[in-house]
Amino acid sequence: MVGPPMTRINDHYQKLKAGYLFPEIGRRVRAFQAANPDSAIIKLGIGDITLPLVPAVVEALHAAVDEMGQEAHGYGPENGYPFLTELIREHDFRSRGVDIALDEIFVSDGSKQDSGNIQEIFGTDCTISVTDPSYPVYVDTNVMAGRTGPADEAGHYAGILYLPASADNAFMPGPPEERVDLAYLCSPNNPTGTVATGENLQRWVDWARRHQSVILFDAAYDAFIQDDSLPHSIFEIEGARECAIEMRSFSKRAGFTGTRCAYMVIPQELEGIDAKGERVSINALWARRHATKFNSVPYIVQRAAAAVFSDDGARQTAEQVAYYMENARRIREGLGGAGFCVYGGEHAPYIWMQTPDGLSSWDFFDRLLERTSVVGTPGSGFGPTGEGHFRISAFNSHQNVDEAIERIAKAFGR
Amino acid sequence: MVGPPMTRINDHYQKLKAGYLFPEIGRRVRAFQAANPDSAIIKLGIGDITLPLVPAVVEALHAAVDEMGQEAHGYGPENGYPFLTELIREHDFRSRGVDIALDEIFVSDGSKQDSGNIQEIFGTDCTISVTDPSYPVYVDTNVMAGRTGPADEAGHYAGILYLPASADNAFMPGPPEERVDLAYLCSPNNPTGTVATGENLQRWVDWARRHQSVILFDAAYDAFIQDDSLPHSIFEIEGARECAIEMRSFSKRAGFTGTRCAYMVIPQELEGIDAKGERVSINALWARRHATKFNSVPYIVQRAAAAVFSDDGARQTAEQVAYYMENARRIREGLGGAGFCVYGGEHAPYIWMQTPDGLSSWDFFDRLLERTSVVGTPGSGFGPTGEGHFRISAFNSHQNVDEAIERIAKAFGR
Repeated sequence: MVGPPMTRINDHYQKLKAGYLFPEIGRRVRAFQAANPDSAIIKLGIGDITLPLVPAVVEALHAAVDEMGQEAHGYGPENGYPFLTELIREHDFRSRGVDIALDEIFVSDGSKQDSGNIQEIFGTDCTISVTDPSYPVYVDTNVMAGRTGPADEAGHYAGILYLPASADNAFMPGPPEERVDLAYLCSPNNPTGTVATGENLQRWVDWARRHQSVILFDAAYDAFIQDDSLPHSIFEIEGARECAIEMRSFSKRAGFTGTRCAYMVIPQELEGIDAKGERVSINALWARRHATKFNSVPYIVQRAAAAVFSDDGARQTAEQVAYYMENARRIREGLGGAGFCVYGGEHAPYIWMQTPDGLSSWDFFDRLLERTSVVGTPGSGFGPTGEGHFRISAFNSHQNVDEAIERIAKAFGR
Repeated sequence: MVGPPMTRINDHYQKLKAGYLFPEIGRRVRAFQAANPDSAIIKLGIGDITLPLVPAVVEALHAAVDEMGQEAHGYGPENGYPFLTELIREHDFRSRGVDIALDEIFVSDGSKQDSGNIQEIFGTDCTISVTDPSYPVYVDTNVMAGRTGPADEAGHYAGILYLPASADNAFMPGPPEERVDLAYLCSPNNPTGTVATGENLQRWVDWARRHQSVILFDAAYDAFIQDDSLPHSIFEIEGARECAIEMRSFSKRAGFTGTRCAYMVIPQELEGIDAKGERVSINALWARRHATKFNSVPYIVQRAAAAVFSDDGARQTAEQVAYYMENARRIREGLGGAGFCVYGGEHAPYIWMQTPDGLSSWDFFDRLLERTSVVGTPGSGFGPTGEGHFRISAFNSHQNVDEAIERIAKAFGR
């Protein structure tokens, strides 16, 4: 056997445009900081929490650390410890009238990982759709897996169906006319900060059942929903168990971005089809993937996540969510009052705004940084339809948010 | 566009034989326990630690938890916190005369994940070799990625070059005559418990440079090496920076199987080639993958890993390693004395033994469980050449190990 002269890389990576969005922002901010060491940068870019872990979680972590110092806690159960999955089932689902079985829950170290990895168990020729703009991981991981052609000038990858989200459709595009195999949906939405209604989701579920498609539903921001009549889970929608996978996270609801815990729900009813035309359980496929390529979340972290469901933990984390949502209100009203066209931020920690003067997203990013030392996220980083838009995150202190709004209004306000 | 009638799965998963090895063992043990509720099972199967975290690590965890309760520690740097990577560079490499740059280290949540994910950045038509038997993740993840055909009766997947490890080659097969793109190597070896010499590794590195191949070197068990003249890192070998990737773990060296921290080293010199024939940095490719599909290890866990390098942490974890290695000695000598043919266990926490009476690996697994309530791991679970062999893990208490040896000698000894 004579092989090629050198080990071949995964060529699909060469189709990816530039770096992953947030490291690219980090690089530009570091360069600015180096050139302007005295500037007081306010970061409203990456959606990263700014409040410490709540006392109930800290207490649970200390207790779990002591346990680890007294007795070995090694490899955990592949799907997560039942002490955590039982609480998830009860508090995140049963309390909203949804029945989920324990073996339908897969505890993981992040929704980024889950939303990036889930595509692996599907065929490489599967067609996919994303709402545009969307969380970059959905698209990038499918590019890496070879489900797309190269990107065009605007940034659309051939083979992905982009569903433009704009003010015209309240940033919640409905299902397309055509069939796709895998449809990514995110509500409350990152980056637009808008939320799906029950009617929106029912249309998607009906479409998916009709086409035997799979909806990949990212609900990482469900804790920010302020109106209790809005769905938190797609499984609140009739028929969703036959067509949907849901991703949830502790990152934003409980300040776990540096603590790392999330979970995915894959109902037993969900099926795909193999080359022989036989139906295959998607839950079983993911279980095989999870057991082979993952090794459970740290014991102490699962104990910390469980504490989020305690009375104290639930109240304390809700207070943090309320704190961030107060920021969202100030940003929405402050920038709106300064003449910007803003969306979202009512059931999500993100405000989506039009860039002023028709500036491109990255031009506005650079100019904003230059003139106000405020960091946001260029909308075009989330997809071509995001061009001309900008995401402002509500994760910061009230004081910094007020200061940022004042600076932006002064520099760009009308 | 009219798609297929139902979403297609990744058909390569259908080639996988049965479940992943360890969940399968877990199922059989649970069934036995249910049928024999009074049996005192001793687990020498899965290589999972049995000693608690050492005091220095516990202390570091408590301190880090307090920090998390006082100030937000959100998303960490993609490659790991410098406070950890600097210690890794100093203690795991510089102390052995090896220079590694910080951006060549990628902190992760496990060597299982790293060894399973690394193949993603290479072409799907890459040829691969494994020593046989080997850690199942190497093969299974390549099957999932479509680099193989189906398995034959013996369990060999078409398209994988299996290099038989037997007593004839001291369980360290040399490089093959032919070229392969990706060669998996593991030393100290799981499952055979044997270790590569500098000469072994030099032959592999010379071969890889000659063929422009990539060696994926799994050194998860390096802390168990007892002879300081043996290489801990493949980068101690001349020329390895041009042809090797190394994986290291805190799981076994510091009892982190339930705490989760590992790292991978990818030298800047390592290159692959793309479809256009252009050379591509493997480090840059992995950095893109890591930033897109991973989200850093918990802050508290990185602080815990850093504590392993403190004077107290190093001493305390070395004592645990010595404790397990005393078990390995007892197993090796005890089973050897009882007439079994045993290998390994001198620089690794695993003893590799021939099954008695020509029993198949799984038959011996079942019979051992039935007659002694001792759990081991069937050699055939690690590859076809593992058939007729059995892995005994040294991770348990001295008392349980002594008891297990006594039971096995009584039931099967000659």
